[in-house]
Amino acid sequence: MSFEKLDTLCRRLNALEHATAILGVDEATAMPVGGGDARADSMSVLAGMYHRQVTAPEVGDWIADAEAEALSADQQAAVAEFRRMWTGMTCLPPDFVERQTKTRMRCEQLWRDLRAKNDWAGFAPALESVVEMTREEASMRAEAFGLDPYDALMEQYDPGNRAADIAPIFAELKSFLVDFVPKALAVQEERLAKRPKKPLSGSYPIEHQRELGLAMMAAVGFDLTHGSLAVSHHPFCGGVPTDVRITTRYRTSEFLSSLMGILHETGHALYEQGLPRDWAHWPLGKARGMSMHESQSLFVEKQIGRNPAFWRWALPVVERHLGEEWAIRDILPHVHHVERGLIRVDADEVTYPLHIILRFELEQGLIAGTLEVSDLPEAWDAKMTEYLGLSTIDDPANGPMQDVHWPSGAIGYFPSYTLGAMIAAQQWAAITRKIPDVEAQMEKGHFDVLNDWRREHVWTQASRFSTPELIERATGEPLNAAHFRAHLEERYG
Amino acid sequence: MSFEKLDTLCRRLNALEHATAILGVDEATAMPVGGGDARADSMSVLAGMYHRQVTAPEVGDWIADAEAEALSADQQAAVAEFRRMWTGMTCLPPDFVERQTKTRMRCEQLWRDLRAKNDWAGFAPALESVVEMTREEASMRAEAFGLDPYDALMEQYDPGNRAADIAPIFAELKSFLVDFVPKALAVQEERLAKRPKKPLSGSYPIEHQRELGLAMMAAVGFDLTHGSLAVSHHPFCGGVPTDVRITTRYRTSEFLSSLMGILHETGHALYEQGLPRDWAHWPLGKARGMSMHESQSLFVEKQIGRNPAFWRWALPVVERHLGEEWAIRDILPHVHHVERGLIRVDADEVTYPLHIILRFELEQGLIAGTLEVSDLPEAWDAKMTEYLGLSTIDDPANGPMQDVHWPSGAIGYFPSYTLGAMIAAQQWAAITRKIPDVEAQMEKGHFDVLNDWRREHVWTQASRFSTPELIERATGEPLNAAHFRAHLEERYG
Repeated sequence: MSFEKLDTLCRRLNALEHATAILGVDEATAMPVGGGDARADSMSVLAGMYHRQVTAPEVGDWIADAEAEALSADQQAAVAEFRRMWTGMTCLPPDFVERQTKTRMRCEQLWRDLRAKNDWAGFAPALESVVEMTREEASMRAEAFGLDPYDALMEQYDPGNRAADIAPIFAELKSFLVDFVPKALAVQEERLAKRPKKPLSGSYPIEHQRELGLAMMAAVGFDLTHGSLAVSHHPFCGGVPTDVRITTRYRTSEFLSSLMGILHETGHALYEQGLPRDWAHWPLGKARGMSMHESQSLFVEKQIGRNPAFWRWALPVVERHLGEEWAIRDILPHVHHVERGLIRVDADEVTYPLHIILRFELEQGLIAGTLEVSDLPEAWDAKMTEYLGLSTIDDPANGPMQDVHWPSGAIGYFPSYTLGAMIAAQQWAAITRKIPDVEAQMEKGHFDVLNDWRREHVWTQASRFSTPELIERATGEPLNAAHFRAHLEERYG
Repeated sequence: MSFEKLDTLCRRLNALEHATAILGVDEATAMPVGGGDARADSMSVLAGMYHRQVTAPEVGDWIADAEAEALSADQQAAVAEFRRMWTGMTCLPPDFVERQTKTRMRCEQLWRDLRAKNDWAGFAPALESVVEMTREEASMRAEAFGLDPYDALMEQYDPGNRAADIAPIFAELKSFLVDFVPKALAVQEERLAKRPKKPLSGSYPIEHQRELGLAMMAAVGFDLTHGSLAVSHHPFCGGVPTDVRITTRYRTSEFLSSLMGILHETGHALYEQGLPRDWAHWPLGKARGMSMHESQSLFVEKQIGRNPAFWRWALPVVERHLGEEWAIRDILPHVHHVERGLIRVDADEVTYPLHIILRFELEQGLIAGTLEVSDLPEAWDAKMTEYLGLSTIDDPANGPMQDVHWPSGAIGYFPSYTLGAMIAAQQWAAITRKIPDVEAQMEKGHFDVLNDWRREHVWTQASRFSTPELIERATGEPLNAAHFRAHLEERYG
């Protein structure tokens, strides 16, 4: 039976994914510096093995045959999702992928060097090559999937998301935020004028922060028998669903950035740990995509972790681990701080979407060919000035050179961040409609109802539905900005 | 060219070995308990991938064709060593390997359970099945390699070692030790009567022990940019030559067991780090085998690490890290302690070989069919009584049930431990003949000449020669017990 052949293939692919995931974690958390070259070689050979097994000529026949077999609904869904993955990997010729990998690697290396030197002129030609190849890639993906080119790129990250659906939602959000950011800043200024920020004591030993982080992880539902917390330069959530590794980094001068980072990665981890085991080795059993994953991390970080009700429970826990007493009204100004800035990764939840919408608009132009790399600094500056009142024209390192995404060829990825924030708010709204006392439960440190709802409506659904379908089935309505707006207005208005 | 095909295959195999090695390290040092099942599944799928790639029908043709190609001497050696590896993997039918794996796993699981309960009767039938299958395996390997059955098993661990060569050396060593152990114990007793042992203070924080371990590792030549030190339940040396991971475990009540363990694993690590890079992905570029590997770990642990000259250098380092002052004459009784015991892994370097010779004699009988599993407790007890004056007849858990080797099917492996001790002593003798002031250098903390010699004569030779050839080329004489005897007599006589 062809389905069985695909099942065996999926087991092999899954073993390679397992190895690659753990090797990646190990590289970031444990590998000595001299191990890098051989590790990179081995990872690339494993990636080649993976690619060769998926794209072997007989696999297309197995899929077609399996589609004709008498299968259960689950098996049919598994084959359909496998075909989607397979199409995404077979629609680009191997020699194109090889050239593209080199072009991206060269651009990313150049980016690391030239961003530090603020050298746009030196960097732009490399980025042009990447954009040029991504246009080619987009047109090949568009052909294979029957989609518009930019949608075909997004399809890699969020199956089912379409620019035509997202653009009006982002437009509405943008016009709201351009007005709302100044309002939120004024509210903050007024509050701080009445009661100045209480500074952090500035002495938080790493081991205490780590224990606090572990306590918070366990409290919000992280299963420490199937995952762990380590240290890395850039925080991430990696590993495999039965063994989820999250990382953070510590500064002894303050504890909030590490703690918030841990909550964020815990959100990703809960999704992975909550995936169904039955289809774990098939694409069907994996998490749905980037925006859904980001919705889970932002749910824990923003909806839970920056909620005043959460802090009413959390402050005694903080005191127990860090030996420092805080009042709610003193900690919230730290947790809810709003500030206009040039850097996306440093942005708060109010200003962050404007960074994303700017990129979403520009990268659509890059793929459509209506915007060229040479025009990026001006285009970026114009939007930054319009949306946040900040100029980047003399500072490309903090303008179009600030992210690794475009140099590494990840175009169509940025929307996921803000879609994730909106999905999280929409899920929160759905939960509070059903369970009105959810904040009262959180104040007592009970997170079960929040997790039960997400387990039922998100985690166990894995890749059974497209992103928009999953959102609508879970929350009862299509994706929209209303709940995220309401969330920001309530918290910052 | 077929050689190129083999080269590409070796790169793939090497990537799988890299992944498996790091996954193994991760499992022992970082994996949460719940990650075990999926990890075992993935490792077994990767092992299957490895096996399938080596045993693919075309590989035999590539080897034969490559042997007929005009190759450099290095390339010929690489193909010859590849054939040896390939023969070892293709000489057993896949369904036999599968049955054997299950039989071993079942026996090993049973062993973990029943050893704790001292239940020989429950355990023996499972061990009988393993021995029965190992006899079958030995006869198939014997056929493929043209060797005697027990030699064919040893060939997996130490290419070129033959029972006919080893047996007389072990016999000589045994008759020496049966006399020497009581002498060494009497000498020790006399010395301790004059000056009782100074006890350890019993308070050694783990972080200080770790820093001491790292300092010692670096001093004796461990490259910390290509390796690291972690904690695991059972100490080991793992990883890959560019990224060697050693582990230890700490007791805060004493520091010597961890420190000596670190030196032992550092010896293994130096071998790996010193292997040539050129042939790293071919079997030719790997370490020669178990006895040669053990010679390197014992060289650092015993020849260097228990040498009084080493301690003259080391004591100030210990004092710096642990804040405790020791005189040479107070530390040496701890470092050179001799004691008769039932347990191999707890044995000192004087009594250890008798544990090995006992096993070597018994396992040859098991494979030849002259000894049955049901007779093991009596046979073990008789030899234990004869060699060390200790009885195990009422204590099978500390008799034939004490090691994991036989339950897991590793028969032919035990000799490597004592061969390693003899090889280390023989290498030490060769070095001191050439560099008479080596101990004076060691007292100053200079280990370069020791490492230079081993790098030239052992590490960079990789798998270019059989074990006996490598010994003879390095030390100028065939393996013999004289140097090891002299070493024991000098240190303990």
